[in-house]
Amino acid sequence: MALAEHVLNGDIRAAARLMRDIDDNRPSAVEELKLLYPHTGNAYIIGITGPPGAGKSTLVDQVTAVFRARGKKVGVVAIDPTSPFTGGAILGDRIRMNRHSCDEGVFIRSLATRGALGGLSRSTSDVALVMDALGMDIVIIETVGVGQDEVDIVKAAHTTCVVMVPGLGDDIQAIKAGILEIGDIFVVNKADRDGADRTARELVTMLEMRNAPEELWNPQVLKTEAQRGTGIEELVGEIMAHRDYLFSSGAIESFLRERNERHFMDILRDNLFKRAVAFMERDNTLARVVDGMCGGGIDPYSASEDVIGGMLGKD
Amino acid sequence: MALAEHVLNGDIRAAARLMRDIDDNRPSAVEELKLLYPHTGNAYIIGITGPPGAGKSTLVDQVTAVFRARGKKVGVVAIDPTSPFTGGAILGDRIRMNRHSCDEGVFIRSLATRGALGGLSRSTSDVALVMDALGMDIVIIETVGVGQDEVDIVKAAHTTCVVMVPGLGDDIQAIKAGILEIGDIFVVNKADRDGADRTARELVTMLEMRNAPEELWNPQVLKTEAQRGTGIEELVGEIMAHRDYLFSSGAIESFLRERNERHFMDILRDNLFKRAVAFMERDNTLARVVDGMCGGGIDPYSASEDVIGGMLGKD
Repeated sequence: MALAEHVLNGDIRAAARLMRDIDDNRPSAVEELKLLYPHTGNAYIIGITGPPGAGKSTLVDQVTAVFRARGKKVGVVAIDPTSPFTGGAILGDRIRMNRHSCDEGVFIRSLATRGALGGLSRSTSDVALVMDALGMDIVIIETVGVGQDEVDIVKAAHTTCVVMVPGLGDDIQAIKAGILEIGDIFVVNKADRDGADRTARELVTMLEMRNAPEELWNPQVLKTEAQRGTGIEELVGEIMAHRDYLFSSGAIESFLRERNERHFMDILRDNLFKRAVAFMERDNTLARVVDGMCGGGIDPYSASEDVIGGMLGKD
Repeated sequence: MALAEHVLNGDIRAAARLMRDIDDNRPSAVEELKLLYPHTGNAYIIGITGPPGAGKSTLVDQVTAVFRARGKKVGVVAIDPTSPFTGGAILGDRIRMNRHSCDEGVFIRSLATRGALGGLSRSTSDVALVMDALGMDIVIIETVGVGQDEVDIVKAAHTTCVVMVPGLGDDIQAIKAGILEIGDIFVVNKADRDGADRTARELVTMLEMRNAPEELWNPQVLKTEAQRGTGIEELVGEIMAHRDYLFSSGAIESFLRERNERHFMDILRDNLFKRAVAFMERDNTLARVVDGMCGGGIDPYSASEDVIGGMLGKD
């Protein structure tokens, strides 16, 4: 029986193994994903992003608890900052969300940033897809995000919550503006801190300045204290309200088209690049190009054109 | 006369125009870059990265002033958080570093994050290359960085300064660990704040725990108050010390090989993907694939293989 069938039967160990195979770039993993794909699309995906220090992990933990209390199975994909040295994720699965560790209805996976061959955005989509196929009702994607990669990742979520925190300094304004467009819900966490009301007001003002058409979704700014569990029910309520909006307005259609296009493009970009790497390995092209760049005789623009010409057989 | 020749003659307006052409993905820009490439490699590239709120822009401003006082020409490439909505950079060139705005020895360029067709890492390398060719002695690359893209970007720098700030909260620990390996110099900015000494001590401890071999560069932790200009001379001194280490130890060789390889790979990945997009446009493949994904009849893994097979003529 294929691994995919076990996953579709809800076998958590099979899912974990498939995720490892995805990590290891095994060709068999792609075949399994092809089998899973037609059975996905059932999970509701929630993105939680924001700057470091905003308390996202605790918030994810609390949101998970609320969905569990409602009988939903919850998958969590946490994108952790990676040590470029070890290649491993800093915050492992084990230290995350201890209280859910014995709960079979919670599946947590930390993803480290990837090497040159695979994009983080693609890995995240693939892992979320396995969780979906496994029968998770909710999949939460958590990123420490101000980077473009992280913005791209949360675009895969039906509902994106942007978490802010008071007192991160002045140039946080830029971040606020940068993430304004990706947030469906804004959360000011650590709301007991000085400046929480000001941060919330600033967010409201910035959102009002956008002049979004009335018929579109109107993002709210909520306040939470994730440590104490304050405001979490309201947050989950707002997530569900956004879900209702997506489906009742028909906005879900264009969302899915855009998400599917990005997912396909990510896979295509990765696969093409892998082909190029394999093509260059045949005759040690990479070392020759780098030698030439260091020596001054080769520029990378012409070298890239040569490789592509060779691959496409038009050289 | 080609734009490249004007750039090599130090024509700032020609450089600005070439950077616009790079932004606009004009094919002519690549031809100009090919002409410039053999004349580059003279600028010393400094990366400045760290979480939002760390005061990086002010620090860059001060470091620029020190180099100017030493008679060096300084280029600054600032990667700004982008509004996905407008596609524009949030902090424009104009509001940056006003005091250098009339100084012909300073060339500032803000780069917004890019669309799907071009990677940020590649654009940054290309723009830094133009500044190099223009005769800038120092090129500073500033990123608001915790994301992988941002880590990749500063890898292009000879010397990377990681800027931290006291009081960003507990999960900043993870960020610290994540960036430990990319920093050649660590800066605790806003050193007048509570907790600055503790943050500095933590960084020293984490660096000591790495057990790096003695003959390698030993990153120092410096304290600055960029607003008041305190500690900036020391920082520039340390940057120059790292530069001396790179050249006297011979570490510059492996650094350049790695940087050149990444630059080439970035260009190759981007160019291949552009070819794929052009290939798919011939018969509207993208729309068909997305339709199929939404309808459930097509999975993106198989579709990607089909497109690549078609491109390589093995279908």
